[in-house]
Amino acid sequence: MADRVLTVPRPRQAVLRMAPYSPPTAGRAGKLRLDFNENTVGCSPHIVEYLKQKLTENELSIYPEYAETRRRLAAFFKVSEDELLLTNGTDEAIQVLMNTYVDDGDDVVLLQPSYAMYRFYAEVSGASIREVEYRREDLSFPLEELLEAIRSSTRAVILANPNNPTGTGVELRGLERILDRAAAAPVLVDEAYYEFSGVTALGLIGERPNLFVSRTFSKAYGMAAMRCGCVFSQAANIEYLHKAQSPYSVNALAALAVRAAVEDAAYVESYVKEALSARELLCEGLRALGIRYYPSQANFVLFEAGERAPALRDELRARGVLVRDRSYEIVGAVRVTVGTREQVRRFLDELKKVWK
Amino acid sequence: MADRVLTVPRPRQAVLRMAPYSPPTAGRAGKLRLDFNENTVGCSPHIVEYLKQKLTENELSIYPEYAETRRRLAAFFKVSEDELLLTNGTDEAIQVLMNTYVDDGDDVVLLQPSYAMYRFYAEVSGASIREVEYRREDLSFPLEELLEAIRSSTRAVILANPNNPTGTGVELRGLERILDRAAAAPVLVDEAYYEFSGVTALGLIGERPNLFVSRTFSKAYGMAAMRCGCVFSQAANIEYLHKAQSPYSVNALAALAVRAAVEDAAYVESYVKEALSARELLCEGLRALGIRYYPSQANFVLFEAGERAPALRDELRARGVLVRDRSYEIVGAVRVTVGTREQVRRFLDELKKVWK
Repeated sequence: MADRVLTVPRPRQAVLRMAPYSPPTAGRAGKLRLDFNENTVGCSPHIVEYLKQKLTENELSIYPEYAETRRRLAAFFKVSEDELLLTNGTDEAIQVLMNTYVDDGDDVVLLQPSYAMYRFYAEVSGASIREVEYRREDLSFPLEELLEAIRSSTRAVILANPNNPTGTGVELRGLERILDRAAAAPVLVDEAYYEFSGVTALGLIGERPNLFVSRTFSKAYGMAAMRCGCVFSQAANIEYLHKAQSPYSVNALAALAVRAAVEDAAYVESYVKEALSARELLCEGLRALGIRYYPSQANFVLFEAGERAPALRDELRARGVLVRDRSYEIVGAVRVTVGTREQVRRFLDELKKVWK
Repeated sequence: MADRVLTVPRPRQAVLRMAPYSPPTAGRAGKLRLDFNENTVGCSPHIVEYLKQKLTENELSIYPEYAETRRRLAAFFKVSEDELLLTNGTDEAIQVLMNTYVDDGDDVVLLQPSYAMYRFYAEVSGASIREVEYRREDLSFPLEELLEAIRSSTRAVILANPNNPTGTGVELRGLERILDRAAAAPVLVDEAYYEFSGVTALGLIGERPNLFVSRTFSKAYGMAAMRCGCVFSQAANIEYLHKAQSPYSVNALAALAVRAAVEDAAYVESYVKEALSARELLCEGLRALGIRYYPSQANFVLFEAGERAPALRDELRARGVLVRDRSYEIVGAVRVTVGTREQVRRFLDELKKVWK
């Protein structure tokens, strides 16, 4: 055949430019998982019970229906139903925001270091990305620098509050200045760690037409496996996002599970309380070892291990404790998830053995 | 505040142009669901049993891991692991293909009528879409017209084999001509209904670098709620798709469920056999009523109800039977899913009462 194709099709330039992203999420079973900021004790038993009730051959064969879940989540989050979109994790919230607002070559402002998926989806959308660095001395939020970076042509600003992996946050007053400055551009405030920080912009939705807030059930709620989150904004914005979203992106069991999750908010409160105590214990332990760390508003702490950060991660792994080496973005930094006080003690014991 | 933002941000032109897509997937419980081509009796009990075993508080709190599922699916589908990508339903396969290959303004060739999501994701990507019509007389595959429509500048061709909602298919010889003609453009062959047609292009992957084949667990396998599918292509292509895919888009329970699904392939074979018998029964019944229908290779049949198509759908709904009115794309057409023979009898009984 003369015209038989011999080479694979050429991807978009945007994809060719991207670095492959392969998070190290294999072989974690049986280890103390302090590497992904998950809930380290598991979700509420009420969720498991509820899902087991609902799990039938017939239920699994039906396309997802979201109306009832939306109703219940709207009541829980105290917004109206048309101010909320259910998403396949926060990841889909970011992707749908890009789908909706960002064209090839558009200016997108991010912070650095931050959650890798902001850059990922901005790259997929072909955006022209500019990054503002967290302040090197204390990894605090670079408010003035960010305000300066936002232009009238900026088409999206994405930030995490508190931020991952720095653990640092921005106050509502600062956020309001960003919203003013970004003018006609959507500003996504990712509140994945809200339950630990207690700071939220959700109350500003009504008066701020360019504000988008995302929440997730993957962290404090202990449902990372289920891939479920929400994005909140004014109804007109949610309608646009909905247009650009896959109609069945959220698994039906996930949509059921989050109903059960919000029925047992006490479980999350109690876990958060434990994690906050554990975070104090962790910081004390690090201080006692003479290890510098950054004060955190989330369920993880970033500490300085110097040149040995990757080796430290490997040594801890060999001892059954998983942490994340972040030295590729912050020199010598290692991130450790805060679980329970008992888990922190175990971590500190192992750390002492390998730190020397 | 002088610079307070008062209007919502403007979406991309591509999104403004899109029609909202809201599939009628509410209030289906308790009815005979012949409207979404699902498996009408439910998935294999082995899947439910397996999930119930796996459902623990701890399991739900962990980010999905896909390696083992990929291994097992690769063995089942007789491809190598690097020729397969797990997707959040076929929908994500389409989206990731667009993410990877289609830039704003790129030429994309689709068929019409076909699965609505091809157009949806092409629109999200900002593509310039051209559609080739199925042959009006018998809704057969317009092979020559499609070949003629493909240009050297075409950046993607997407088709379903067999097609939804027409039920008609294209032979492998025809597909090979399309693959030749599309040259450097990816050609996605959506085989969502493969189990009913028995025709697959999967065996051509090795020699065809521009071929992409998608399969789903939402139809014959009875797992529409779970959102899980696969896309197959040469390893170099899968690597590109992987770069543009969300790292955790597939729910962990879905990734577990499909392992159980392929362990009980006998269940699917038996359901398919039943559905094929039921399809014959359905066609006989339609003939007896003097209703024109289109021969189908899938688990649904399109028939002509003339001007009363929407009313017929409503009357059947009132009697507890759901079908899809497709008259917005094919004059007078109604699509009915084929389930078991018993369900077909029920449908025909109700149809007789309202047809007159």
